[in-house]
Formats: sequence, C-alpha cells, structure tokens
Amino acid sequence: MNYNMIFYVLGLVFNFEALFMLIPAGVGIFYGERHFFAFFASSLICFAFGLLFTFKKPLKESIYSKECFVIVALSWFFLSIFGSLPFILSGSINSFIDAFFESASGFTTTGASIINNVEILPKCILFWRTFTHWIGGMGVLVFLLAFLPISGGGNIYLMKAESTGPSVGKLVPRLKTTAGILYLLYFLLTTFEFIALKIGGLNWFEAITAAFGTAGTGGFGIKNSSIAAFPPRIQVIITIFMILFGINFNIYYMIICRKFKSIFKSSEFRCYIAIIIVSITIIAVNIYHIYGNILYVLNLSAFQVGSIITTTGYSTCDFTQWPMVSQTVLVLLMFVGACAGSTGGGIKVSRFIILFKTIVKELRVIINPKTVKHIKFDGEPVQHEVVRSLNVYMMLYIIFFAFSVFIISFDNFDFTTNFTAIAATLNNIGPGLSIVGPSGNFATFSSISKVVMIFDMIAGRLELFPVFVLFLPSTWKK
Amino acid sequence: MNYNMIFYVLGLVFNFEALFMLIPAGVGIFYGERHFFAFFASSLICFAFGLLFTFKKPLKESIYSKECFVIVALSWFFLSIFGSLPFILSGSINSFIDAFFESASGFTTTGASIINNVEILPKCILFWRTFTHWIGGMGVLVFLLAFLPISGGGNIYLMKAESTGPSVGKLVPRLKTTAGILYLLYFLLTTFEFIALKIGGLNWFEAITAAFGTAGTGGFGIKNSSIAAFPPRIQVIITIFMILFGINFNIYYMIICRKFKSIFKSSEFRCYIAIIIVSITIIAVNIYHIYGNILYVLNLSAFQVGSIITTTGYSTCDFTQWPMVSQTVLVLLMFVGACAGSTGGGIKVSRFIILFKTIVKELRVIINPKTVKHIKFDGEPVQHEVVRSLNVYMMLYIIFFAFSVFIISFDNFDFTTNFTAIAATLNNIGPGLSIVGPSGNFATFSSISKVVMIFDMIAGRLELFPVFVLFLPSTWKK
Repeated sequence: MNYNMIFYVLGLVFNFEALFMLIPAGVGIFYGERHFFAFFASSLICFAFGLLFTFKKPLKESIYSKECFVIVALSWFFLSIFGSLPFILSGSINSFIDAFFESASGFTTTGASIINNVEILPKCILFWRTFTHWIGGMGVLVFLLAFLPISGGGNIYLMKAESTGPSVGKLVPRLKTTAGILYLLYFLLTTFEFIALKIGGLNWFEAITAAFGTAGTGGFGIKNSSIAAFPPRIQVIITIFMILFGINFNIYYMIICRKFKSIFKSSEFRCYIAIIIVSITIIAVNIYHIYGNILYVLNLSAFQVGSIITTTGYSTCDFTQWPMVSQTVLVLLMFVGACAGSTGGGIKVSRFIILFKTIVKELRVIINPKTVKHIKFDGEPVQHEVVRSLNVYMMLYIIFFAFSVFIISFDNFDFTTNFTAIAATLNNIGPGLSIVGPSGNFATFSSISKVVMIFDMIAGRLELFPVFVLFLPSTWKK
Repeated sequence: MNYNMIFYVLGLVFNFEALFMLIPAGVGIFYGERHFFAFFASSLICFAFGLLFTFKKPLKESIYSKECFVIVALSWFFLSIFGSLPFILSGSINSFIDAFFESASGFTTTGASIINNVEILPKCILFWRTFTHWIGGMGVLVFLLAFLPISGGGNIYLMKAESTGPSVGKLVPRLKTTAGILYLLYFLLTTFEFIALKIGGLNWFEAITAAFGTAGTGGFGIKNSSIAAFPPRIQVIITIFMILFGINFNIYYMIICRKFKSIFKSSEFRCYIAIIIVSITIIAVNIYHIYGNILYVLNLSAFQVGSIITTTGYSTCDFTQWPMVSQTVLVLLMFVGACAGSTGGGIKVSRFIILFKTIVKELRVIINPKTVKHIKFDGEPVQHEVVRSLNVYMMLYIIFFAFSVFIISFDNFDFTTNFTAIAATLNNIGPGLSIVGPSGNFATFSSISKVVMIFDMIAGRLELFPVFVLFLPSTWKK
C-alpha cells in the first residue's frame, strides 16, 4: 500500500477544492453578501490541508488498483466534508450532519436536501450548491487526471473507480487526453445550456445555476418549487439538456469525429431513448384526465421522466399526487438510471442490457445444455470479468439497499418513504415518494439515517466498489 | 422436443391429481357435506384428461433438460387450473380467476387468499385448500419420480426444475430412491406435527389441516384469524414445525444416517438459525413496549419470524400495526426465505451465502487483481455454472419483480401494498403489508393483477427458469 501517494493525491484534491471555493466567494463579493467570507475561510482550511498533504512529492509514484480505489473513495468523503464548511461558516446550516448531508448530496449530484426554504439562502451559497453538482458530475479525479501531474500506468484505475458504467474505455490511447476531452465536452455542453437558458429569458444567475444543476444531473434548485418556478419554455430546454447529459459522453466524441453511424449502432443509446419515449407515453396517458391539456401533460411527463431517468431530480410538479402507475414508472426509472459514461447515476441502461442478455443466454443453456454462447454488446463480446463484476455489483447493490432501508426504518416513517428515500440517495436522484417527495425533504430524518444516506449517496456515485474496498481488512495490510 | 413424452407425463400428473381429489371427497362424505360431489366431478374431469394423455405410452422415452423444464412448468399451471374446479363446482368461489388464484396459491404453498370469510366454507373445501399446500410443498414431479414408472437419465432435470435452491444433489445414487426418501421424511415430519397438535388439544380436523399448512409452508388457515384462534401452546408447536420445515431435508437424512457432525457444519443451517434468532430479538425489543409481557412478545415475535422466513404466512397478530423496524425486518425476511431443499420459498439462505462470498471475492480481486480464488460452500468449491445460474436467477427475479409491481400498479393501490403483494406472491408467503396484510386479502385486486400474481406464485415456486423457458421461441422448435 503506497500510503505516501494516497496522501499526496488526496492533498491535490484538497487544493483543487480550495481553488474552486474561491468562485462562490467571488459570487458573494459580486452580490455584496457578507457570506463570501465563509468561502474564503473554507478555502483556507482546505488549502492548509492540501499543502500539508502535498508538501513532499512521494519518491515512489506507482499506484495500483487498490490505491486508486482507496484514493477515490476517500477523496469523495473528504470533498463532502470540506464542502460542508461554507454551509456551517455562513450560518446557512447549523448542524454538521445536515451540512455534510447537503454537501455530499451536492458532490454526488443527488440533490436531496435538508433545507426547507432555499429562497432565503444567500446567492453565494445557492451558487455553491449547484457548483458542487457540476464538479461532482464529471468527477474530481478525472479532472486531476486531465490537468494535474499524476502519471503512471495504474491511473486508469482512478478513472475506472470514478467513472460510471460496467466498463471504462479510453477515447484516445492517452488517459490524460481522454480525461481532457471529457471535461471539454462537459464544459461545452454546459455552456450551450447556459446560452439556451439565457436566450429563454433567465437572468445570469438563474441560467448558470440551472445549467450547473442539469449538467451534473444534480437537482438542487434556487427556488422552493424547483423548476416549476420557471416558464414552460425553460422547462423544455432543461428537459432536453437533462436527457443530453444522461447520454454516454463517448457519443459526443463520435459526433465530433463525425462517426454518425456508430451513434445509432449504440444499443445503450437506442435503449435509453426508447425507455424515455415509452415512459413519457405511459405517464402522459395515465395523467391526462387530471390536467386535460395534451401539451401541458406532455411537458410535465417529459420533464419528470427526463429528471428521474437521468437522476437529476428537478421537478415541475408534485408527482406523489399522480396515479400509482405513473409513480411506479418513476420509481422503476430511479433504478434504471442514465447511460454509462454520463454524469447520471442509477444502475445504468447498459448494465440492464447486459443483464437481459445473460438471462436469455441462461434460458438457452437450459434448452440446450451444450450451447456455449458469448454475450455480445454492440457487436463486441463482453468479457467474462465484466459480467462477473456486474453481477457482483448488482448483489452488493441489493444487499446494501436492503440494509439501508432497515437502518432508516428506525425513524418509523412509512415503508414507501424509506424505500424511495434509499432509492433516491443510492441512485443519486434527490426526491422520492411520500415524505421525501418533490414537495418534501430529508430534514426530518434522524442523524443516523442521514449518515446512512450520506454513505449511500457516495457509494452510489462511485458505484459501490471503491467505498466497500475501504471496509476490507486486507486493503490496509502492507 | 419429445412432445409425446411431455403429454404422457402431464397425463400422469392429471391422474395423480384426480386420485388426490378423492381424499377431500371422503372428508366431505364423512362430514355429511353435499359438496363432496364437487370433488368427485373434478376428479372425473381430471381423470378423463389423464386417461386421454396417458392412453399410449410413447415409444421414445428419453427426455432432456428442455422437456423436463417444460413438463414441470406446464404441470404446475394445469395442477392449479384443475385444482380450481372444486372451488367452482362447490359454489365456494364464483369467478374462475379467483378460483385459479386460490388453487395456485394452494399448490405453490403461498397461502394468499381471495376469500374474505373462510369460516363459512365447507370442511371438505378447507381440507382441499391445506391439502394442496401439502401436495405442492415437496413437489408433484418428485412424487411421480418416487412412485411412478418414469425412467431415463434426463429425469434428474425434473427434480432440478421442481426442487428449491441453487443446486440439487441426490441423497443416494438412485434418483427414484432419493425422491422416495424425501417424501418419506416429509410424511414422517407431517405426522409428528399432527401428533403434537393433537396432544396440544386440537381436534382431528384442526390438527390435520394445520399440519398440512405448516408442512408445505403454505399458510391457508381454517379460521379468519389464522393461528391466533388457537391457544399459545399450539402457536409454539406450529412455530417449531414451521422452522423445521424450512430446513434442508438433507439435514434430516443426515440425522437418520447419524451424521450429526455434518449438520452443524452446514453453513446454511447455521446461518438460517442465526437469522431467525437475530430477527426474533430485534422484533421482540422493538415491540416490547406495545405488549409489556416478555413471554407473550417472544411468542408473537418468534411465530411471525418463523412464519415469514419459512414463507408459510400464518399469523397470530396484525403485524402491520407494529413499528416500521419490525415490519421492515419481516419484509426483508420475505426475500431471504428458507433453506434450499426445504418446502419453503423465497430466494433461500444458501443463495445469499454464495452471493455474499462472491462479493467478498470481487472486492479481493480489486485489491489484488492477480488473486484467483474459488468460492467454497461447506468446504466444497462452488462450480462456475452454479454461480452463473444463481446470478442470472437473481436478475430475472428483480426484473420480473419490477415488472409485476408495475402491472398491478394499474389498480392504483399504494406502493407498499403493490410492493409487498408481489413480494408475498413471488416468494410464496401469503400476507404482505398494508391492504394485503394479515387481516386483509387479495380479493380487491383486478383480474389482470390476479393473473400476474398467479404467474408470480408459480414462477416463484419453480424458481423462475422453468416458467420462463416456456416463453422462449427456441424451446418450441423441433
């Protein structure tokens, strides 16, 4: 275990966070808010730890799978802890657990909040909440890989541990360039959304926070009624961009490379679009009698479907008032999640495609035990390791899900609340049903439940393995 | 595909059912109920089909995996359809779907009922309901293998398709003898319970129906208040026997063979007992403040835990009134289920043990990618095929579960009702929470939902694969 290198990379992460905290500080100064000071102070604390950890560059730079998973898991815990400082120092949130929850919810792009009234918060705090979504969306280690001097062959594991989906492929042979391209695409797409929202009529602050919240598939809003506060044309723009940010970023790289044919060959992309269209249709038909206006219904339905499948968590209505069919569709979409390699959470469409193929293969083996068929995904055979790891991921997911529901059941809320609260945090969505619906929040849970859900959010964002590696004694053996 | 042999074995199943229908007919005659006639008529119809299908023994007797899975799946559908005839012909249930639901719930040992008031039913119908549990508990094809002339090497697949758990082992080299031993143990254990209940003070009819319901881990009762109608000593006896019937029957064979050491070496057995003890303790502590009497609380807690983990579904109180922790423990136990090779349903303890080991192994691979470790179960390496099949089973389980919840959500009941109704039927338990709690029933669901749940019950009892094989086009190709 290369502890020196773990400390060093953690230090880089702290420095990076310290730097990024200066931006909301600037926002505070711009709006003449005294709270800007909270960000300066937090940045200083962060930077002090960063300096301490990066003081001496380790002689032995090589890190392997184990170190990378540990680094990624610890980075996200500390990011969230330091990220809670501005909430506390500005007096916006009084309890540490609540601030930690809000911060973890931000970085993991969950968007589950413990704040009852966001409209009384200073603008710099509102900015920070959505900015954490943007930082967390594409990943912090991916950022470091792109712009900071970490070298070594083991680095691919840093990206593996932080990126989403069953397997990670490089866009170009060089990892540093791949990471750079991803961040560039992310930055461009965010800018496009910002421009669209600005043209749509939002002011600078509204447009930038909404763009950050969408880009990271986060969901923190600056209004108590979330996106319902904005006119329908803005809702349509956000719907489109939510769905765009839920797509595998490789697709955008293909567009740039003019490989248009490959896009429609992507089974995950086609499946993702199909699921969205089918879900919008089912919900629109199911809720039509409530509203009676087809365009209005389609807008509502598309927004909510886009928000949930991409695990953003914005809302334009209280869908807990809808009939159960629509609510059930949304709960199922919570688990489906977005595409691999996107900023979205959940289990991911590609995982379900591979799982579905393993089921058909197994049934074929029963029919003819001598059949040996390999599973193919987009024409390429899926490696045994990928299938095995995927299966284990699913099992860990289920067992951890059940455990989390059990722990939070001590708060004695109803089963629907507990089940969807964990679904909403583990899949990095935000709202669930019942008490944690779009018009509710997570404030009423006990501290223990909040700690469990913080853990769920981080574990969900990192797709479980990095976080659970921390708990295995053999990880820490020399 | 050997269609002739499929028809022939189905015919044997019909004959077998016709024969078994004569027993409730006898009960009807004994109690002077005119409804005995319904059983005679049903038996005749069954026998007519049986004769038609077994008229000519096929020349080619060989059947393989595919045929066996098809035979088992079709047998259970037809068993349930013919088993619904007495309900209809006696006028106890008016709609075919309701009768089919009740019959499938009986054979699959689920115990979910659409009948509001069971106490007005004739005794022969009450007997039939619990008798179907007993027939379904150990399996129909296992019975045929033991007592009827089906020969051929492919028959092991009949047992594989009908038995429970991740893998099936023979107790003795000969399959026929293995099946015979299993039925003998089943018969003996049922007799012991009957004697215990008789000594405990129940009358003949009460004792035999309660023994059948426990043995098959079924759950149909002859009283509206289920087992709460009987005194505490009877509840204790039933608790003990529920837990005994949830144990792998191999354990009883080991007892007969005086291999006592091997029993405690069985990790599934130890785990099963540990889960039961921990669950009883959590619930007892959690509900103590409601009742205030430790013995009473332990009895309640042990009964409900025993009933749910073994997927019996009897109840002695309305646990939907308990705090959420206790309800959550029971919901989780619904999925855990009993031991492999028992009459219980659910996912099975041994599956969870193997899954847990695959998770630890995968985390170890992350720590050290060069590690190649095989998973061991009770000292024996678990074959790759078993793990693969288990993983696929879990995925099929989850996807089918989600699909079922979606379909029944059209009835617009609350999420807790829908989720636990499917949990209760797919795991062959009986009661769930909310509307389908111990004091509720399944009568209010629409016919479509009932059909889905019939399918869930049969798919759950046969552990999914046999039923889904029916839907693959390649199954039916020559």
